[in-house]
Amino acid sequence: MASNSFGELLRITTFGESHGAALGVVIDGVPAGIALAVEDFLPELARRRPGQSGVTTARRESDAPTLLAGVFEGRTTGSPIAVTVANEDARSGDYAALKDAPRAGHADAAYQSKYGHRDHRGGGRSSGRETVARVLAGVVARKLLPAETRIVGHATRIGPIVARRFEPATIETNPLRCADPEAAVAMEAYVRQLREQHDSTGGVVEIRVEAPPKDLGDPTFAKLKSKLAEAVLSVGAVTGFSYGAGFRTAEMRGSEYVAETANFGGMLGGISTGATIRLEASIKPASTVGAAAAAGRHDPCVVPRVIPVLEAMVALVLADRLLMQRALSTPR
Amino acid sequence: MASNSFGELLRITTFGESHGAALGVVIDGVPAGIALAVEDFLPELARRRPGQSGVTTARRESDAPTLLAGVFEGRTTGSPIAVTVANEDARSGDYAALKDAPRAGHADAAYQSKYGHRDHRGGGRSSGRETVARVLAGVVARKLLPAETRIVGHATRIGPIVARRFEPATIETNPLRCADPEAAVAMEAYVRQLREQHDSTGGVVEIRVEAPPKDLGDPTFAKLKSKLAEAVLSVGAVTGFSYGAGFRTAEMRGSEYVAETANFGGMLGGISTGATIRLEASIKPASTVGAAAAAGRHDPCVVPRVIPVLEAMVALVLADRLLMQRALSTPR
Amino acid sequence: MASNSFGELLRITTFGESHGAALGVVIDGVPAGIALAVEDFLPELARRRPGQSGVTTARRESDAPTLLAGVFEGRTTGSPIAVTVANEDARSGDYAALKDAPRAGHADAAYQSKYGHRDHRGGGRSSGRETVARVLAGVVARKLLPAETRIVGHATRIGPIVARRFEPATIETNPLRCADPEAAVAMEAYVRQLREQHDSTGGVVEIRVEAPPKDLGDPTFAKLKSKLAEAVLSVGAVTGFSYGAGFRTAEMRGSEYVAETANFGGMLGGISTGATIRLEASIKPASTVGAAAAAGRHDPCVVPRVIPVLEAMVALVLADRLLMQRALSTPR
Amino acid sequence: MASNSFGELLRITTFGESHGAALGVVIDGVPAGIALAVEDFLPELARRRPGQSGVTTARRESDAPTLLAGVFEGRTTGSPIAVTVANEDARSGDYAALKDAPRAGHADAAYQSKYGHRDHRGGGRSSGRETVARVLAGVVARKLLPAETRIVGHATRIGPIVARRFEPATIETNPLRCADPEAAVAMEAYVRQLREQHDSTGGVVEIRVEAPPKDLGDPTFAKLKSKLAEAVLSVGAVTGFSYGAGFRTAEMRGSEYVAETANFGGMLGGISTGATIRLEASIKPASTVGAAAAAGRHDPCVVPRVIPVLEAMVALVLADRLLMQRALSTPR
Repeated sequence: MASNSFGELLRITTFGESHGAALGVVIDGVPAGIALAVEDFLPELARRRPGQSGVTTARRESDAPTLLAGVFEGRTTGSPIAVTVANEDARSGDYAALKDAPRAGHADAAYQSKYGHRDHRGGGRSSGRETVARVLAGVVARKLLPAETRIVGHATRIGPIVARRFEPATIETNPLRCADPEAAVAMEAYVRQLREQHDSTGGVVEIRVEAPPKDLGDPTFAKLKSKLAEAVLSVGAVTGFSYGAGFRTAEMRGSEYVAETANFGGMLGGISTGATIRLEASIKPASTVGAAAAAGRHDPCVVPRVIPVLEAMVALVLADRLLMQRALSTPR
Repeated sequence: MASNSFGELLRITTFGESHGAALGVVIDGVPAGIALAVEDFLPELARRRPGQSGVTTARRESDAPTLLAGVFEGRTTGSPIAVTVANEDARSGDYAALKDAPRAGHADAAYQSKYGHRDHRGGGRSSGRETVARVLAGVVARKLLPAETRIVGHATRIGPIVARRFEPATIETNPLRCADPEAAVAMEAYVRQLREQHDSTGGVVEIRVEAPPKDLGDPTFAKLKSKLAEAVLSVGAVTGFSYGAGFRTAEMRGSEYVAETANFGGMLGGISTGATIRLEASIKPASTVGAAAAAGRHDPCVVPRVIPVLEAMVALVLADRLLMQRALSTPR
Repeated sequence: MASNSFGELLRITTFGESHGAALGVVIDGVPAGIALAVEDFLPELARRRPGQSGVTTARRESDAPTLLAGVFEGRTTGSPIAVTVANEDARSGDYAALKDAPRAGHADAAYQSKYGHRDHRGGGRSSGRETVARVLAGVVARKLLPAETRIVGHATRIGPIVARRFEPATIETNPLRCADPEAAVAMEAYVRQLREQHDSTGGVVEIRVEAPPKDLGDPTFAKLKSKLAEAVLSVGAVTGFSYGAGFRTAEMRGSEYVAETANFGGMLGGISTGATIRLEASIKPASTVGAAAAAGRHDPCVVPRVIPVLEAMVALVLADRLLMQRALSTPR
Repeated sequence: MASNSFGELLRITTFGESHGAALGVVIDGVPAGIALAVEDFLPELARRRPGQSGVTTARRESDAPTLLAGVFEGRTTGSPIAVTVANEDARSGDYAALKDAPRAGHADAAYQSKYGHRDHRGGGRSSGRETVARVLAGVVARKLLPAETRIVGHATRIGPIVARRFEPATIETNPLRCADPEAAVAMEAYVRQLREQHDSTGGVVEIRVEAPPKDLGDPTFAKLKSKLAEAVLSVGAVTGFSYGAGFRTAEMRGSEYVAETANFGGMLGGISTGATIRLEASIKPASTVGAAAAAGRHDPCVVPRVIPVLEAMVALVLADRLLMQRALSTPR
């Protein structure tokens, strides 16, 4: 119900505007006794942080998290976990001109219509900066999943360039997070060129969940694919979701479809089978282009920064459904 | 939380197995005073019903709804509305062989793993028949939307055949619900051929919402696109969702993307702008093929029957968000 | 959210008006594999049924339940369980006069103000008949609790007469459900006298939960006492709730309070300790008195019929919290 | 679901332990455009703060709130409001001895059983200090209610002393928040005496809601009385709840009950009628008595400090139900 909360048993509530005092998240439903320290958040925050290469925005965010509640002597207590990150590089001045001029393709006009009164600085709540809170929560969610479960995101397309190979060791070695070393080079060149043209590009992200718990998801409205789609589309830049063979199933015959279990994407009847879960998300190009992009800081390609956010959202869905399965499975 | 419920303020709860006594839905959150009669459900039930042409299953479902509660003297009372449809053509015998032999691509094995004990007759709760309840609820949801809002679904692809024109008057005149008269002919021929081959095909459905209410959806986790994706993926046959330019945004430059407002799909920042909402769903081919399809009743193409279900799900999301907007908008 | 639903993991949704076609309940969140048959509902329905003695209304309700969904071959399937009870003795005619004359102390005027349009026959949704659905759900909830957990309700006060002893074997042997054989005789005489005077009386019900699961309830807003209070006050006739020493704690010193663990009512910090849970509910007298009571069927004392309803509500809370504890407890 | 959240449309989520870094609350569902400044919280925090007189604990809490999010240029934006209060006077040392010795009547042992791992300092999450977050949220809730609606709490009983008069101007002039000037004097003397004896006392609080909105609450499970009971019992010290004539209805005849509308407590059929809502809560004596009370800081009477907390909880319920009524009422 509350539109800034996500999940049912593992439930997060996020708050904070891009140019307010801080961003934060409250994570409720974490069992007691799980090791958690403020340092645990740093690697994922670093992966999400902009300004790391020529392919993303130059905006710097130091993102030092503060653990306000829910942990005692290094372990969770069963109480809600609260983490905040102060906003430091918040140059509101850059955005003053935006007060009266809503930007095409941005949420500005929609917010103005809906709320009448809005924080126009840097998008306020609609800013990509809001996703810091999701990444924080994702770190905790992963701790609830089995150790063998791995959530791996990578860019399979950037504009016209498509990845053809999956070499996971490659992903974190290139700025686009592409698992195909060759495509990665072409992608980077393409994005650098767009940057000079004050333009931007979209892309496709694949998330693989290897060795996922089975039996997650419920028939009818809580199908795992339904909850994953909701999670993925809740990220601002995402324009599409598919799992398994996805939109290619539209062209398939049933005999083709059932011949290859990879087509099922690790889910049948809305329930995880234990096989690798595969899903894709299409990412739109950032809307700040041309003169506006030349004037301020802009993002020629948000794809690599969206990847840790999508991984976090997937972790949150899986952990939530795992708790649900614990609750509703028959004791045997 | 309850996995057989959907929506927050307009909340439906569905029940019933394909071969049980009845299917039904309880619809909570409907304001009082809205005209509602059992006849109102008939046209949409007829649209969903199989056996109407050579392109869908021959299974007959008479689908006579019973209005058990929530309506008095022809108008809603604010109390929960309950509607059931008895199962008549439930030949369990046809399915006895399935008890021990889970079907490839079906939910059978997933249910067996998750529940241990399952109703193996015709898929039980995982059957497409469950969608009757959604269609019933969609009829009520539509009554909460403005009269000018129209939700129109149609097939834009069936296997290799793609619709190129949008002539809405055509949709209900051909068995595939295609808005392109020429493509419709080719689609029908293709599906008839698959039927003879005991095979099936997938497709793509587009849902357009013309003249939708604006300001629906909330930033963060209750973005309208997020709720629509959840709703659409909750339908068993759906493998993908996109809105606006969808997966094509992955290939676009920002300058292209912002140049054409149709790319935004009627939503910005997760909030409806009042422009036509456009979304697409990819539909997988039915998994009952070959010998199994030859032996029993099977569905060479579920696309036309999924359309009224998707329209219903979209109506439910819009009505729910409309009630939410009423609650949380600032009185001005 | 949905106001006709109760519970979070074990979630029930009720529907039906006193003079509509049927009453019913959908029970979601029941694990698969639990034995359940339509006969299981009969004893509790019988306990709730009016017309069994001179102390309650003469309205006859046959209450034959129909199990529409969720059970296959005698066991639950994990799908929602739907049960309905048709309304048979629905003499709307008796109530025609009530259309325009809201009754003092009844919900009539409140419904008229809130909904504009209401089902005036027998109170519609505000009728005590709605509690049939709760009793049905309570039967299922009890099956989720440990076998040793017993929920026992009894009348501790009827008007001026107070029970002094607790002999559980006595409860079902007298029409007031009083555990004190002597008080029971006085109570029955008192109620028969009120019946002749076309008047009614209130009372107090105690619910004891013997051998309850420990660790149920959560700190902060989901304290077990908070959920029990919500459940108990959701029953129309209830005007007050207390647990343990209840309102007597207001007069106590801390030294007295901590000296006797029975004062804690089986809960500390909002969490069940495993000791017997004791709570009390005050029941108001039925508002149909005087000429109205003389003309129609009325209830001089609803207390004995409220007891199985309160037991059911307590069972629902406990089962819901037990599932929650399963979900959120640390695996050890 | 999330056990640290309360409310459906106006939804708060609280966090923080008594001896952690900070306490806080996220308030979601507040419409945009409402004037809100950090100063608005100060009066209610002051009312809740201990150490103001000889009748409550000497523990000092400066309670300076920080508004982290949701307000821009002095008005709410529709985004979640986050407020924190740092813990300053957190002398954990005082509590070191409690690590292994759970206190009688406290949550200590229940937490240990439920969580295995707990923050033993000052009760952690079970501390009364958690209520700071509720008071903060209550300030915001009140802004959503009509200006004429007034929520007034006062002590009607402290141990053996009962208030007989209601002079609202008196309430804030005496340390017990009693509306009867004479009783107030006796109450204060009684509590000072208990303080010297290292003992404590319970009491009764009445909350009156004058000029409440009508039509709040829903039939069945969201009766206003049910939601109020849940809210009131979610406060640690509360052992009982009643509304209107409350437990006295148990002794009443129907003819008496309907003769006096004050008996209805401002609600019929679970819905507010617009008449003054009256409810009572019984408060248990603090469990820290004797040697433990002599050694540390203790609270001989928590009643006056519980009053602003209960007022806050009532405000939250009313505002939540008011938003719900906006959503679900028929546009006329």
